[in-house]
Amino acid sequence: MTRIGLGAALALLAGVAGAQERTIPSRALPTPTDVSPQMQALIGRPIAPTYDVVPKTTDEWLARQKASADGGAQSLPALAQRLHVKVEKQQMGGVTVYAVTPDTVDPRNRNRLLIHIHGGCYVLGGGLGAASEAVMMAGLGHYKVISVDYRMPPAAYFPAALDDVVSVWKEALKTHQAKSMAIFGSSAGGALTLETVIRLKQLGLPLPAAIAPGTPMADLTGVGDSFHTSAFVDNVLVSPEGFCDPAAQFYAHGHDLKDPLLSPVYGDYKGFPPAILTTGTRDLLLSNTVRVHRKLKDAGVEAELNVFEAMAHGGYSRDDTAPETHQAFGDIAKFFDKHLSR
Amino acid sequence: MTRIGLGAALALLAGVAGAQERTIPSRALPTPTDVSPQMQALIGRPIAPTYDVVPKTTDEWLARQKASADGGAQSLPALAQRLHVKVEKQQMGGVTVYAVTPDTVDPRNRNRLLIHIHGGCYVLGGGLGAASEAVMMAGLGHYKVISVDYRMPPAAYFPAALDDVVSVWKEALKTHQAKSMAIFGSSAGGALTLETVIRLKQLGLPLPAAIAPGTPMADLTGVGDSFHTSAFVDNVLVSPEGFCDPAAQFYAHGHDLKDPLLSPVYGDYKGFPPAILTTGTRDLLLSNTVRVHRKLKDAGVEAELNVFEAMAHGGYSRDDTAPETHQAFGDIAKFFDKHLSR
Repeated sequence: MTRIGLGAALALLAGVAGAQERTIPSRALPTPTDVSPQMQALIGRPIAPTYDVVPKTTDEWLARQKASADGGAQSLPALAQRLHVKVEKQQMGGVTVYAVTPDTVDPRNRNRLLIHIHGGCYVLGGGLGAASEAVMMAGLGHYKVISVDYRMPPAAYFPAALDDVVSVWKEALKTHQAKSMAIFGSSAGGALTLETVIRLKQLGLPLPAAIAPGTPMADLTGVGDSFHTSAFVDNVLVSPEGFCDPAAQFYAHGHDLKDPLLSPVYGDYKGFPPAILTTGTRDLLLSNTVRVHRKLKDAGVEAELNVFEAMAHGGYSRDDTAPETHQAFGDIAKFFDKHLSR
Repeated sequence: MTRIGLGAALALLAGVAGAQERTIPSRALPTPTDVSPQMQALIGRPIAPTYDVVPKTTDEWLARQKASADGGAQSLPALAQRLHVKVEKQQMGGVTVYAVTPDTVDPRNRNRLLIHIHGGCYVLGGGLGAASEAVMMAGLGHYKVISVDYRMPPAAYFPAALDDVVSVWKEALKTHQAKSMAIFGSSAGGALTLETVIRLKQLGLPLPAAIAPGTPMADLTGVGDSFHTSAFVDNVLVSPEGFCDPAAQFYAHGHDLKDPLLSPVYGDYKGFPPAILTTGTRDLLLSNTVRVHRKLKDAGVEAELNVFEAMAHGGYSRDDTAPETHQAFGDIAKFFDKHLSR
């Protein structure tokens, strides 16, 4: 049980009378007992002292980007091996992609294809490691997946990432039917999933049969209650003063942050394909995930929401042995199976 | 944006190294701009100084219960009038109920009936006010509803409330088909909705075609991460040291709190009817709502989850003019329409 002293409680009560802004007292946050040991380990990790260190020069951005890519590249081969998945670097429509193929493609998925968009605040997570979530989807869901290694700043700014995904989509349409394809990704990849559909609508191109935006960075303007309620509760993004928002602004490059192609929560959801969204109760982006869910429902779109107990940002794709990972990708695979033509 | 001083951040980091328990710093919680003015007003309310005052004697419990019943009875007639609903006190199977009938019953709902179970920590919310959520459902969803004014302690302890709901269900089966009926309720009423299905399974009685457990008090053993993360964030239940858990223990009367008929998260969800669950990002019972959602999905049950932005415990049934109230009951009405025979 949360223990709060009388003094703190009185200070709290004194602070709120008639105010619109409330002060929440400091509190102890025990590691929950109702999640898997793997999830306990993930959410028990201390907050990185560098959580709010933002690069100041191009060289610093490049160094951070390289460190992220190197780390991702290092861990991917073992992950692919564990999940019995083959990963091949290819070009599609002039864009670098990873073709991720499970040793066993489910016969129902033979003509189906998933497009995956990696996360990393629009700046990190590139290179071979980009495919890690695609590997989980391919290995656990037995789908073929194309993971897009889109261009990132400082090499290329908004809307380069989006343009690259659209180029890959156009290329995929040459070999697959839109109604047999889905798009998915988490964090910036969740936002890019939504932005891609908005962009495809603008371009009059066929839409995917379903999408799975995981904990999307759907609002870069600072709006979203869990930016405040989950600050220092989420040990991944930690706080809105962390790395991620400045990184996204680095990508935006002066463009209006309220543009739905950067903050898709402000988009028009009419005609969107069915969507399954995934987040956790500790996620700094819990609010922005549920706000998108509501927008979809209000637009008459079939939209499912999964919120995992005590999970921080993107926790469902950090440990392929965690039961929560199997549940999250299992639910997405089932949702795609329901909506994609064979 | 949440502002946390360097000192607090350093203390935080020092406190977490290698620890399983983390300390979350105090923080300011602004009223969000992305919810309706009605919801802003609800979540902007200061925390009641009496939030953790628990009655010590039978007379104190009775006084608290009477105050709750009087308040509910006072506000109900105007609510019923605004929503064009008629409320009649009746007896069903020896139990006091309120028959709640909209002036306009949707023709699709002519043979359908909903059973409503009110909240109030198993101790409060009785009398005419018990029907308030039933009035919203009837008025906004155009269904006929029976609201159960079940017995509460100190008049009668566990499993009296559950027995009363089962008695009403048996009586309803005499005039309606189970496949044309649903059960719903919030908080203790959400828990009782789940407990009723578990009990009906035990008794071999027909199950409802769908259920809508709203923010269920699904775990009385103190487990659930949002008891900690939402403490003092939720201005309704406030903290696990608040009134509600001691009240539920008063009802339990020494019975094992882990019994699924008191903590339904520990129940067997196989064979459950389709369920739609509702909660909010600030809800102290967010975790216990999503834990039940997961249990249902893992048992192969169709289960929908709605999580409202910045909403505290049960905020969707506190202001019938709020768009969030219309969205919540609208989604439940649609879900019932999908699953109930006509």
